[in-house]
Amino acid sequence: MALSIRGYAAQSATTPLAPHAFERRDPRPDDVVIDILYCGVCHSDIHQARNEWGNSTYPMVPGHEIIGRVASVGSKVTAFKPGDMVGVGCMVDSCQHCDACAQGLEQYCKEVPTFTYNGTDRRDGLPTYGGYSERIVVSDKFVLSVPDGIDPKAAAPLLCAGITTWSPLRHWKIGKGNKVAVIGLGGLGHMGLKFAKALGADVTLFTRSPGKEAEARRLGADHVVLSTDPEQMKAVAGQFDFILDTVPHQHDLNPYLATLKLNGVHVLVGLVEPIDPPVHSGGLIFGRHSIAGSLIGGIAETQEMLDFCAKHGIGADVEMIKIQDINDAYGRMLKSDVRYRFVIDLASLTA
Amino acid sequence: MALSIRGYAAQSATTPLAPHAFERRDPRPDDVVIDILYCGVCHSDIHQARNEWGNSTYPMVPGHEIIGRVASVGSKVTAFKPGDMVGVGCMVDSCQHCDACAQGLEQYCKEVPTFTYNGTDRRDGLPTYGGYSERIVVSDKFVLSVPDGIDPKAAAPLLCAGITTWSPLRHWKIGKGNKVAVIGLGGLGHMGLKFAKALGADVTLFTRSPGKEAEARRLGADHVVLSTDPEQMKAVAGQFDFILDTVPHQHDLNPYLATLKLNGVHVLVGLVEPIDPPVHSGGLIFGRHSIAGSLIGGIAETQEMLDFCAKHGIGADVEMIKIQDINDAYGRMLKSDVRYRFVIDLASLTA
Repeated sequence: MALSIRGYAAQSATTPLAPHAFERRDPRPDDVVIDILYCGVCHSDIHQARNEWGNSTYPMVPGHEIIGRVASVGSKVTAFKPGDMVGVGCMVDSCQHCDACAQGLEQYCKEVPTFTYNGTDRRDGLPTYGGYSERIVVSDKFVLSVPDGIDPKAAAPLLCAGITTWSPLRHWKIGKGNKVAVIGLGGLGHMGLKFAKALGADVTLFTRSPGKEAEARRLGADHVVLSTDPEQMKAVAGQFDFILDTVPHQHDLNPYLATLKLNGVHVLVGLVEPIDPPVHSGGLIFGRHSIAGSLIGGIAETQEMLDFCAKHGIGADVEMIKIQDINDAYGRMLKSDVRYRFVIDLASLTA
Repeated sequence: MALSIRGYAAQSATTPLAPHAFERRDPRPDDVVIDILYCGVCHSDIHQARNEWGNSTYPMVPGHEIIGRVASVGSKVTAFKPGDMVGVGCMVDSCQHCDACAQGLEQYCKEVPTFTYNGTDRRDGLPTYGGYSERIVVSDKFVLSVPDGIDPKAAAPLLCAGITTWSPLRHWKIGKGNKVAVIGLGGLGHMGLKFAKALGADVTLFTRSPGKEAEARRLGADHVVLSTDPEQMKAVAGQFDFILDTVPHQHDLNPYLATLKLNGVHVLVGLVEPIDPPVHSGGLIFGRHSIAGSLIGGIAETQEMLDFCAKHGIGADVEMIKIQDINDAYGRMLKSDVRYRFVIDLASLTA
C-alpha cells in the first residue's frame, strides 16, 4: 500500500527534468509524512541529475532543502503532529550507532548516511527520492522543526546551504573577536556572511568580481576584498582566524593561506575536487595554518541553526520558481544568475 | 673586540665544508657565551649549505642543534652562569613584541625570527653563524637549560628534530587515548615515535620499507604499517586522531587522509614543497579532516620538552662524528644511512 507521488525527475544524465510519478514507502511507525511546500535548488542537484559525480541512479527526483507541513505521523512519533511546519535536509537516515552518530554528527556516519535522494534506504533497500515532489516520508529522527518566525520559503535553503556554512563556523567556535573571511558569494557564501556576522565576527568577503560591495555589506560583510588585486590581498596578509571557502570549482588556495593569522584555518565546504594548483606546505608550516573540509551538518546542529535563525530573523535570500521552470533555473545557476537560491513552490506541481 | 672563532663553513653552494675562521660579536649585556660541545646535523643544514632553498649567504657555518657549556654571561644575565650545560636551537632572537612572541611562539614571530645561521642579527645586522664551531654568543632569552639526566650528546638533536615533533604533539593535545601515526623513520620520525609513546598515545609507524618492525617497536611504535601495501592501509582506515608526517620530500597524502578518524589532523613537519600530487578535498570534507603545518617550536615549549626528556629518560639516537667527517656524513644522510642523527663532537675541531 505504498504512496503514489507526483514529482519531477531526471530519467538519465542527459534528459531535462520532467513530470514523473513514483511510489514512496508505506509509512513506518517512526515515520513522518510531509506535504512538501517548498524545495530549495542546490548546485549538487545539477551535479547529480547530470551524473557529474558518477554515482547517479535514475529515475532521480532531486531536492534536499525541503520545507513542508506534517500530514500524518506513525504510532511511535511523539515530536511531531499533523500541521507542524518541518524541514528535511540532505539526510534521511544513518546507522545510529557509530561514534559520529552518537555525537549527533550523522553526516559523518561511518556506515555512510542515507541521502535524501540518489540514495538507498538502509532498511528496505529502495531508492530515495527528494523534494521536487508533493510529499515525502522520513524517519522522525531526521525531521527538523521549523520555528515560528522564519519565513518557510527562506528556510528551505537553510537545510543545505545554511547548515553547510553554520556547522564549520560553530565547530571552529567563531564569534565575537574573530576575523572571518568568506570566499564566494553564492548560495553558501551569502549564508556564510549572514551567520558569521550574526555570530559576532568581523566579516570580510573575498570576491573576484568588482561591484559586489553593496550587496556584500547588506548581507553582513564589514569589508570586501577583491582577490584578483595583489595590493588588496597584501593589505589583509595575516588577518584572518578563519576562512570559509564556498567556491565549488578548482581555485588557488595559496593566496588565501597568506591571509591567515597564526593557527588560522581555511575550511573547504564547496569544493569536491583535487586541490589544484597544489598548496605549498610553507603556507601551512609558517603560521601553523590548517586546511580542513566540512560536510553539511548533523541533525542536532541543524535544529540549533534553525532556532538561531528564528531568533535573529535570518533566512536565505530566495527567488521563487515554479517546478515547470526548473530546467531554466539550472541554466541560470550555471551562470551564477541567482540571488542567492532558487526555491521551488511545490503548489505549482499540482496547480 | 669581536671574538675570533674556528669553525667549518661552506664558501659556496658547490664547495664542501672546510675549516673557516670568523668573528662573533663582542658579548652584549644579555648575551651568553657558550663553548660548544656537540652539534647535531640536520637535513636543513644540507639544504642551506647547498642553497637548495635559494636564500643562502656565504660563508655559511651551519648547525642549529647546539649543546655546550656556558663560558661567560653578560651583566644582565641572571638565568645562566659559567659551567651550566645549555642548548641553542634554530633561533637566536625574535621581535619580542608581536602576538606570536607574546605567546612564547617565537618561531612564528611576525617580523620573522633571527635564525641561528644563514640569518642576519636583528640588532647589529651582521650574519649569524651556527654550531659547526667552537663557540657561540646568544641572547639569554634563546638559551635553553639542559637538565641533569639527559646525555648531552643525545640532547643535541632535541633542539630541532625533537622540538619539531614535540610542538605539534603538544599543540594538538596528544596523550592517552589517542591513536597517533608517524610517517617516516628518520631524525624527526624516530623522535616522533618516542614522544608520542611517552605521552601515552597508541603509536603506529607508517613506512615504505619492510624490515623496520623491530627498530620501530624499540623506538616506541605499537604497530607498523607498510604504506605501500593497500591491504595494510585499508586495515587502518579511519583509525588515527593524528598523523605526524616527517617526510621531507613530495609524497601522496591522499592514502593517509583515509586513515584519519573524524576530526583527524595530518600535520606536515618535514615537507617544504608544493603538496603534489594534489590532495582531493573529499579526503578532508568526508570526516572533517585537516592538513596542517607546524614549524619547530617556541623557546618555552623547547624547555618543557627538555625537562620532559630528562624526566622520561628520552634522547635522540645519535652517531657521533668528527667535524672532519661532515661532508661524508652529508653523503650518508642523503642515502638515509644514519640511525638517526649525526652529532658532531666539537672536540675534534681543536684536537
